[in-house]
Amino acid sequence: MDIDARLAGLIADMKLEGRYRTFIELERLAGEFPSALWHGPDGAQRVTVWCSNDYLGMGQNAAVLGAMHRAIDASGAGTGGTRNISGTNRQHVALETALADLHDKEAALVFTSGWISNLAALGTLGRVLPDAVIFSDALNHNSMIEGIRRSGAEKFIFRHNDPSHLDELMSAVDPARPKIVAFESVYSMDGDIAPIAAICDVAERHGALTYLDEVHAVGLYGERGGGIADREGLSHRLTIIEGTLAKAFGVMGGYIAGPALLVDVVRSLADSFIFTTSLCPHLAAGALAAVEEVRAHPEQRRLQERNVAMLKAMMQAEGIPVLDTPSHILPVIIGDAHLCRQTSERLIADHGIYVQPINYPTVARGHAVSPSGHCRHRSAHSSTMRRASPA
Amino acid sequence: MDIDARLAGLIADMKLEGRYRTFIELERLAGEFPSALWHGPDGAQRVTVWCSNDYLGMGQNAAVLGAMHRAIDASGAGTGGTRNISGTNRQHVALETALADLHDKEAALVFTSGWISNLAALGTLGRVLPDAVIFSDALNHNSMIEGIRRSGAEKFIFRHNDPSHLDELMSAVDPARPKIVAFESVYSMDGDIAPIAAICDVAERHGALTYLDEVHAVGLYGERGGGIADREGLSHRLTIIEGTLAKAFGVMGGYIAGPALLVDVVRSLADSFIFTTSLCPHLAAGALAAVEEVRAHPEQRRLQERNVAMLKAMMQAEGIPVLDTPSHILPVIIGDAHLCRQTSERLIADHGIYVQPINYPTVARGHAVSPSGHCRHRSAHSSTMRRASPA
Repeated sequence: MDIDARLAGLIADMKLEGRYRTFIELERLAGEFPSALWHGPDGAQRVTVWCSNDYLGMGQNAAVLGAMHRAIDASGAGTGGTRNISGTNRQHVALETALADLHDKEAALVFTSGWISNLAALGTLGRVLPDAVIFSDALNHNSMIEGIRRSGAEKFIFRHNDPSHLDELMSAVDPARPKIVAFESVYSMDGDIAPIAAICDVAERHGALTYLDEVHAVGLYGERGGGIADREGLSHRLTIIEGTLAKAFGVMGGYIAGPALLVDVVRSLADSFIFTTSLCPHLAAGALAAVEEVRAHPEQRRLQERNVAMLKAMMQAEGIPVLDTPSHILPVIIGDAHLCRQTSERLIADHGIYVQPINYPTVARGHAVSPSGHCRHRSAHSSTMRRASPA
Repeated sequence: MDIDARLAGLIADMKLEGRYRTFIELERLAGEFPSALWHGPDGAQRVTVWCSNDYLGMGQNAAVLGAMHRAIDASGAGTGGTRNISGTNRQHVALETALADLHDKEAALVFTSGWISNLAALGTLGRVLPDAVIFSDALNHNSMIEGIRRSGAEKFIFRHNDPSHLDELMSAVDPARPKIVAFESVYSMDGDIAPIAAICDVAERHGALTYLDEVHAVGLYGERGGGIADREGLSHRLTIIEGTLAKAFGVMGGYIAGPALLVDVVRSLADSFIFTTSLCPHLAAGALAAVEEVRAHPEQRRLQERNVAMLKAMMQAEGIPVLDTPSHILPVIIGDAHLCRQTSERLIADHGIYVQPINYPTVARGHAVSPSGHCRHRSAHSSTMRRASPA
């Protein structure tokens, strides 16, 4: 086989379908978020970033950056090891304690990314529970799908945010089999929110574990910033809450919080955790500062909420077909991939507004999405269309 | 099923077999590497870390830390996005350019970990090449195994470092099928080095792509620190070289370097890359500084080589059964998991020497390994026994 020809063909197909991805090269300007320099074909140009997940600007927050500087001075850069081999530092332990507390759980475990959190946790639980069945929301993120696939467990997909369908599927499965219900709180592409209580009702009726991905909610909802489950007083009904340090907390990494025994099993048996160099200590320190900052400042969440409403109203007044979501995510669906890309190109070139077009595989074909965005000047956030997955 | 009982049983089994992992809580002391504080049951105690992969102390190098501080001041903490959605920054582009150059390749792509690099690259290539076959060294790292598994490609395992067996296996496969030979240069658990030229001879004869994991070699070998392939003038014979930023380069993250077309395919199609928040810009800046530092100071590699030889001679003189490896890794195989753990416990408690015992699944059962270590005071490095995988 002519391997080069095959690979070139794949790239050509993506270009033809308008889904070849061109990365916009940015230079973030600390203190001026959401402004950044765009290093494009015509040199550097100042743009406003409307498609960031740094929802509260924590990635440039003075307390966060100060904690990182201090930790670098104290402990250096990388850990030089996996968590098991000289790679567990005080900062990891402190962060895990704070995250467990944030979600009212016994324990937490930090990973190098949210993607790995889901792969590790779902992949391990579905594997070590004999004959397990995982019930997965139809719009779950790629990392959850990969985790479920890796687990080897039988999978049933329930219709998006549909507890009745979940109940129907669960009723057809042997009651003795271990079950996990995996879903998200805020879906990043459609901006809608799961009926968590109703899903927990069903899961509890069938004796299932519940696994909630709150990556687009932690830091943004709830009196303490614990997410939608926190806001709705439901944390205790979720077995595991998965979150990220890379969006509202402004740094990078992911985590799970849950019962100590279950977290210990993931810690002890997940290959993707075991065989990876641990997060740099200063990232853990920065994330801890962000968690504390968010807890201490609920007014930032209320301000953001008001600004999201204002932005949505402004877009609606202009006739922009923004989805009327109950979250901070404001998607505008363009549909055609080429048109979506052209829209984004005009926005950045002519107006200094950067909103990345989102195409397949991040959204389904025919759902190419575009602007809306994170505009911290108005302190509102929304995100590129149908960002049900952070890509 | 009683899920808690099942999980508790798993943990109890691990404890019984001596392979339950207890993480040693460290506090790294910048500027005093390899010393660190161990926060153990009796409070804080100063220890020497003999099992770090921060082989050259780059994690505390002034140029590296300075670059990180400056990048944080300039651009903040996280990127707030995947590479595609506002997460590509100047620092990523600069680092990828430097890494491609380090390995004499057209392009490079940075990931959040080496584990993900292997999952993404092998998982994608084996999947997009129809009817591909992957030939994998028997001692390949978990992340390569996971990547191959994820690809869905047919896999053949050749005996460790055995080009004849590889040839035999390849000869039995239809010459028209696309083939990939995946192996490592320095195997971290045994400290041995692959016969790269001989493996490339076989691979070329069968028209296969070659994929070399150099995570325990980059920064440490070759005139420029490009690894074993660099040292032996073989870089051009490897299709893809995979490396890490988390060991000799002292930070975190991983990468591949290879032909531009092939790197573009991984960039465009690897889920684990697409759906993950990008590496923090300051980590990319720190890693770039480390790559430059390593290239500028080949004398550090020569010093380390001398010190490894000295340490090995001292251990042999004391009758410690250290493996006589051709690399910086000096494993001591204890065999029994409980004995291995007890040895490590005595070393840290009585002598302030921290060497993590390495048990299953990082090494095969019956190969529990222990000390040797990274001792930068003597500037020699070796590592916990049979560390063929960084865990």
